[in-house]
Amino acid sequence: MNKTNQFSKNPNFTKRDVDGDSLKRSQCGHCGFIDYQNPKVVIGSAVRHGEKILMCKRAIEPRAGFWTLPAGYMELGETLEDGAKREAWEEACIEIEHDGVLGVFSLPHISQVQVMFRSKLKTERFAAGPESLEVALFSWQNIPWKELAFPSVVWTLAALRQTWNAENFAPMGNPPEGRFGFPLTKPPID
Amino acid sequence: MNKTNQFSKNPNFTKRDVDGDSLKRSQCGHCGFIDYQNPKVVIGSAVRHGEKILMCKRAIEPRAGFWTLPAGYMELGETLEDGAKREAWEEACIEIEHDGVLGVFSLPHISQVQVMFRSKLKTERFAAGPESLEVALFSWQNIPWKELAFPSVVWTLAALRQTWNAENFAPMGNPPEGRFGFPLTKPPID
Repeated sequence: MNKTNQFSKNPNFTKRDVDGDSLKRSQCGHCGFIDYQNPKVVIGSAVRHGEKILMCKRAIEPRAGFWTLPAGYMELGETLEDGAKREAWEEACIEIEHDGVLGVFSLPHISQVQVMFRSKLKTERFAAGPESLEVALFSWQNIPWKELAFPSVVWTLAALRQTWNAENFAPMGNPPEGRFGFPLTKPPID
Repeated sequence: MNKTNQFSKNPNFTKRDVDGDSLKRSQCGHCGFIDYQNPKVVIGSAVRHGEKILMCKRAIEPRAGFWTLPAGYMELGETLEDGAKREAWEEACIEIEHDGVLGVFSLPHISQVQVMFRSKLKTERFAAGPESLEVALFSWQNIPWKELAFPSVVWTLAALRQTWNAENFAPMGNPPEGRFGFPLTKPPID
């Protein structure tokens, strides 16, 4: 059976004024269901092991085949910290501990917030989870700078480098446009 | 016309397995619409003016009549920083500048994330917006400690006090259970 035919109707959303709200909201013309949409939260970690940094080669779109940090959408009922640990487990089969907040980023064009932790491996065991082709530890110089998946990976790695020896540090916000560039041809900072 | 009768059906959501997802998602039995639900982001500010802190008495539920910091749900297409400025304008008719991130909190029981900035008034003008009964500046000792709206207001004010003279500081995460208590009978820290 075609999946679209198991329902008597298709959703029919239009933007409408709804009670007690200053913005128009998306409401289904059949059901009256109001689909409140708000930015989604991505949580992730720059995970250190000694002098090295753990990265994952993406098995899924977008940006399959490019390198990223373990991260993904926060789910209902979890904390930021636990969500980042869950993603690290799902994507790299690792157990981690957090020791700081590296970045609090906004991607308004896709209505996304990213909270990125500085973390460390609890043991040296890691492996590719279902959404990764490969997981590896890199020294700063050997990170595949030309093959990074997203600008926010660059921002997080730059924040990690800048706070490498710091114990109490402010998180990075969005860098000024063009501060690091993307894609890169070399490390964003030395 | 009764509002519930303008639609041919009511929404009929049940939790189902959907393609390519490890969690069950909420899907309407009429339309097939999948209602992906993720935590929502609240952005807000502890706003300073000299030695004083701006607070708003809530005009709306929950916790109408109790004191809070200007904050609210982040909307699509905005940054964390701009969302906090928008909320400050809507609730207290103020223009503000941010100078740090005080708190990055998780409220998993209501699937909410809160990002709270340290900010300052650009001018001394303020007034109650439609969601506030009253807006006022308080010295630390005069904050209405027994009439605060939410535990995260306590956490943010404690972080503000602890970082009052700091320029580069880590945001507070959720404090250990019982660290400050709620409701309060006195300031959470001196």
